[in-house]
Amino acid sequence: MVSNNTSVVALLHGPDRPGLVARVAGWIFERGGNIVHADQHSDADAGIFFQRIEWLPSANGAAADEADFAAYARTLGMAVRVAASTRRPRLVVFVSKFDHCFHDLVLRWKAGELAGDLVAIVSNHPDLGAAARGYGLPFHVIPVAAATKPADEARQLELLRELGAELVVLARYMQVLSADFLEKFGRPVINIHHSFLPAFAGGKPYHQAAARGVKLIGATAHYATRDLDEGPIIQQDVARVTHRHSVDDLVRKGRDLEKTVLAQAVRWHLENRVLVYGNKTVVFD
Amino acid sequence: MVSNNTSVVALLHGPDRPGLVARVAGWIFERGGNIVHADQHSDADAGIFFQRIEWLPSANGAAADEADFAAYARTLGMAVRVAASTRRPRLVVFVSKFDHCFHDLVLRWKAGELAGDLVAIVSNHPDLGAAARGYGLPFHVIPVAAATKPADEARQLELLRELGAELVVLARYMQVLSADFLEKFGRPVINIHHSFLPAFAGGKPYHQAAARGVKLIGATAHYATRDLDEGPIIQQDVARVTHRHSVDDLVRKGRDLEKTVLAQAVRWHLENRVLVYGNKTVVFD
Amino acid sequence: MVSNNTSVVALLHGPDRPGLVARVAGWIFERGGNIVHADQHSDADAGIFFQRIEWLPSANGAAADEADFAAYARTLGMAVRVAASTRRPRLVVFVSKFDHCFHDLVLRWKAGELAGDLVAIVSNHPDLGAAARGYGLPFHVIPVAAATKPADEARQLELLRELGAELVVLARYMQVLSADFLEKFGRPVINIHHSFLPAFAGGKPYHQAAARGVKLIGATAHYATRDLDEGPIIQQDVARVTHRHSVDDLVRKGRDLEKTVLAQAVRWHLENRVLVYGNKTVVFD
Amino acid sequence: MVSNNTSVVALLHGPDRPGLVARVAGWIFERGGNIVHADQHSDADAGIFFQRIEWLPSANGAAADEADFAAYARTLGMAVRVAASTRRPRLVVFVSKFDHCFHDLVLRWKAGELAGDLVAIVSNHPDLGAAARGYGLPFHVIPVAAATKPADEARQLELLRELGAELVVLARYMQVLSADFLEKFGRPVINIHHSFLPAFAGGKPYHQAAARGVKLIGATAHYATRDLDEGPIIQQDVARVTHRHSVDDLVRKGRDLEKTVLAQAVRWHLENRVLVYGNKTVVFD
Repeated sequence: MVSNNTSVVALLHGPDRPGLVARVAGWIFERGGNIVHADQHSDADAGIFFQRIEWLPSANGAAADEADFAAYARTLGMAVRVAASTRRPRLVVFVSKFDHCFHDLVLRWKAGELAGDLVAIVSNHPDLGAAARGYGLPFHVIPVAAATKPADEARQLELLRELGAELVVLARYMQVLSADFLEKFGRPVINIHHSFLPAFAGGKPYHQAAARGVKLIGATAHYATRDLDEGPIIQQDVARVTHRHSVDDLVRKGRDLEKTVLAQAVRWHLENRVLVYGNKTVVFD
Repeated sequence: MVSNNTSVVALLHGPDRPGLVARVAGWIFERGGNIVHADQHSDADAGIFFQRIEWLPSANGAAADEADFAAYARTLGMAVRVAASTRRPRLVVFVSKFDHCFHDLVLRWKAGELAGDLVAIVSNHPDLGAAARGYGLPFHVIPVAAATKPADEARQLELLRELGAELVVLARYMQVLSADFLEKFGRPVINIHHSFLPAFAGGKPYHQAAARGVKLIGATAHYATRDLDEGPIIQQDVARVTHRHSVDDLVRKGRDLEKTVLAQAVRWHLENRVLVYGNKTVVFD
Repeated sequence: MVSNNTSVVALLHGPDRPGLVARVAGWIFERGGNIVHADQHSDADAGIFFQRIEWLPSANGAAADEADFAAYARTLGMAVRVAASTRRPRLVVFVSKFDHCFHDLVLRWKAGELAGDLVAIVSNHPDLGAAARGYGLPFHVIPVAAATKPADEARQLELLRELGAELVVLARYMQVLSADFLEKFGRPVINIHHSFLPAFAGGKPYHQAAARGVKLIGATAHYATRDLDEGPIIQQDVARVTHRHSVDDLVRKGRDLEKTVLAQAVRWHLENRVLVYGNKTVVFD
Repeated sequence: MVSNNTSVVALLHGPDRPGLVARVAGWIFERGGNIVHADQHSDADAGIFFQRIEWLPSANGAAADEADFAAYARTLGMAVRVAASTRRPRLVVFVSKFDHCFHDLVLRWKAGELAGDLVAIVSNHPDLGAAARGYGLPFHVIPVAAATKPADEARQLELLRELGAELVVLARYMQVLSADFLEKFGRPVINIHHSFLPAFAGGKPYHQAAARGVKLIGATAHYATRDLDEGPIIQQDVARVTHRHSVDDLVRKGRDLEKTVLAQAVRWHLENRVLVYGNKTVVFD
C-alpha cells in the first residue's frame, strides 16, 4: 500500500477482448481511485491488448493495493506489473573505459531526470574509478578475461545481489554478457549499441558505417538478450554525416547519439513506460 | 446510427474529475461496444480532461447511437463531438497560383490518405483550373479585390453553403479571410503559414528568415482565426538551411515542409484527432 | 563551348598532391573565367582528392572549352566530368504500379526543380499510362517476365537508346535490373529502396521493420549496381514510428520518405553534385 | 610562424571579384604550401566573397607566415583572420546556477572536442564552485546587482584581462551583459538562448512556448550584441513536443537542446569555422 499522495502505475498486456478498458477503469473507480493517465494499444494482428494506467488512490487507500490490482488484472487474463510511482528501482551502471554515457547518466540522475536510485558503478577496468568516486558513487572493479569469464560473471552476479540491483545499464561496457549471466540475473539489462540496428550489428559499427558510405549514423538502446544485438529495441536515433566526416568524426557525433538514446531508454524504463512482448517493445511516452 | 462494422469516434473535453474514464468506458461496455482506441490527457494546470475514444458498437447497435453518447457525455460536463469513422467531412481547398500544396493534397486524397471528400477547388485566380479539372475536380474562380472584398467573400460563403463544405483548407491561398467570413462560415479553416510561427508572422517569411540568418526554416499549419497567424497550431516542422541557400532555395525547401505539414494537419483533423481549447490544440496521433 | 552567361561545372577526382587547387583555379583564371563555386575534399586515408568547381567563362569563351579543361585535368592525374550548367541530361523514369514517386518526380520536374529533361516513362504495367499522358509524357509499356527477361531487357535497352537516355530513375520499379542490363546501358541508374540500408535489404522492408520493432523507418536512394541494394548511397532519411503504427502506416509514412529522398538524389545527380568512388559517394551539396 | 606539421587556417571575406580563389591558392602554392581544405561561398546578392582555407606550410615554412598571408589578403580587399590550427584560444565560461551546459562544455573540453583552453569559470553565484574545482578549474564569483552593475562588470572585465580571455561563453548565465561591457571586452561572446529565435525572445521562453502551443521547442546559440537576443545566429536546433509535455518537460527537453547547440557553436568558433558579416554568420562546417 502506498501513501495517499502517491500514484500507482500498472502495465498490463494480454489477449484482447471487449470490456478491458471499462473493467480496469471500473475497478479503480469503485475503490475511489482517480485515473490521471491511461494509454492503451491493441495490436490487431497479434490480438494483444496493452495498457499503461496511472491513478491516485483514494484517501482510504483501497485502490492503492498493488497486490489486489494485480490479482484482479490476472483474472482478466493479463500479465501485469504494478508499482507506486515513488518506488525507485535500484540501478547499477556497467562501464569500461569510455566515459561519455557514464557522465551523462550520472549527471541526469543527479539532476533528478531518472526515477531510480543509482547505487553503484561496476567496471572491468579501473579507469573511471576516480570520476565515480568524485560523484560520491561506489565503484567496483571486476576484471573480465576470456579464460575466467564464468568466474568473473559469478562475481558480478554476487555483487548485483548484494547491491539489490533491479536494473543494469551497460553504458558502453565492452564485454558481452553471457546468456547464463542474463538468465541468472533475471532482471532487465539495457544496452546501447552504436549503430542503427539491425544495420551494423557486431563490432566497430562506425567503421562499418564509414566503409558502407551511409549518410546517417545511429544509436540503438535495447534490452540485452542471449542473442547479441538482437534484443527488443527501446529507442533509436540518427545524425546526418557527409563525406567530410572521418571515422573519428562519426565517433564524436555518435557519442551524442549514444548519450541521449541510452538516457531516454533508461528514463522510460524507470517510469514503467516500456512493455516488452516477443522481441518488440511498446513505449508509452 | 451506424452499421455494425463501423467504429465511432468521440472527442471530449471538460472539467477534470474522478471517474470520467470509468464512466465513459462503462457506458460503452454496458451497451456491448468494444473500445479499440482510447487516449486521454489531463491538463493539470488548467484542470481540463481531454479524451479521444473509438469503439466498435455491438451487433444490435445500441452503443452506436451518436446522439445518445453525446447526451451522456454532456451530463458529465463534457463538450463532445461524435462521428462514425465512415463519416467523411466535405472538404474544399482554396488556392491561388502556387500549386505544390494543391497537387499534394489532391494526390494524397486520391491515394486514400485523407478521410474526407474533396468536393471542390476554389481560387481567386484561374491558373490552376486546368490541373483541377484534369483531376476531375470542380474548379470555381472567385476573384477577390480589396474594394469588393465583402461581396467577394459573400460569394465564397454562398458557394461553400451550396457545396456543403465542412472544412476549408487554405493551400497557400494568398488572401486573408476576414473575421466576418470566419464567423459566418462557422466551420474550421486550416491554413499553412510558411514559417515556424510565431517567428516570421506576416508576409514574405522566407525573406524575413534569410534576413535574420536563421539556421532552420519552418512551416506551421494552424486553424485560421480573426487574429492573423495567431490561431491554434496543429503541426509544425523545420528543415536545416545554411549560408549556401538563397531565398529561392528556402522557397524550394519550404515547399516540401509546407506540403507535409499541411497534409498531416488535414489528415489529423479529418480523423477527429484534433481538439482545440483556448488557443492551443491537443493532437491525439 | 557554351554561351557567355552559362556556367561550367567540373567534377574531378584522383590522387591527392600539392597544388591541385591552385593549378585548377589558375587554369580557369588565366583564361578569364570567374569561379563562382568551388568545393574540394581530401580523403586522407585513401589519398584521394575530390573537387566540384563551377565557373563563368570569359567573354571570349576561352575558359569554356569543356574538352580543353578535361584534357588539362587529366594531365593532373584526375578523372573528370565537365558540363555546361545549361546542359540538361535526358532522364527516363521507370515505374510499375506505385505512383507516389512518379507523381512527385514529374511535378518537381514541371516546377523546375530538376536540371534535366524528363523524356519518357517506362513501365512493366499499363496502370500509370493515363496519368503519364495526362502530364503530356510519352508512356511505354514493356512487360517483364522471368522467362523472357533477357528479351524484355533488350527491348528496354533499345528504347533507352532511341530516347537518348542519360539517366534512368527507378521510381519504385518492382523489377531487378540484371547486371547485363546495367553494363549494356552504361549510364547511371538511380534506385529508391524503402529502408535505411543496409538494414532490411531485399523484399518487403516495411514488414521486416515492423517485425524487428525498429523505432525509425528509412529510405535510401542509391546507384543501382549488379549487387542488389549494395550500390553507392546518395541520400537517406528516416521517420519516427511507434507501436501505434501498423505496417500500413509504415507504408504511408514511407511514401513521404521515398519521394523526398529519391527526388533529392536525382536533383543532386542532375546538378553534377555526386561523385562516385569505390562503393561510396561524395555529394557536394 | 608555425612548425611544419601544423596547418594554418585563414578566414577571408570581402568584395567578390574574379580570380580570388586562384590568387589565394596561388600564393600558398608558390610558397610550397599544400591546401588541405578550402571552402568558399559567394553571396550573389550582397556581392561578398567568403573563404575558409587551410593549408600545410612547406618544410621551410615560407607559406606559414601568418602575417605575410594576412597582408597579401588585404591587398585583395579582404578582411582576414589567420591562425595556426594549433593556436588554442583562451576560453572563459560564465555560469549562474543552471549546471547542464557547464558540465557539458567542461566534459567535451576534457574529451578533446574543443580546440581551445578552458581557463576559468566565472559566476555571479557560488553554487557551482565545488563542481568547477572538482574539475580542477579556477572558479571566480563576481556577484552582480542592478545597483552596482557598472562596477560589477568592471571587475569582470579586469578578470578577463588577467585571464587573457579570447572568448566568453555564456552557459545559461542569467545576467544581460551591457553594451558597454561588450564594447570594452572587444572579443566574441557566445550566448545560448533557450528558444528558436526570433520566436520567444526575452525571458521565460519555455513558458512562452507552452502558452503559444507550439509543437517544436528550440535553442539558439548566437554572438551576444548590444541588442539582446538579436545577435548573429551560429546554430539552432529543435525538438518535438506535444500536449503531454508540461513546462517542466519542455525545460528538461530544452536542456538537451541547449547543451548540444551551444557546444557545437563553441566548437565551430574555436576551429575558425564561423565568419560574421552584418547580422548573419557563414559557418564552414
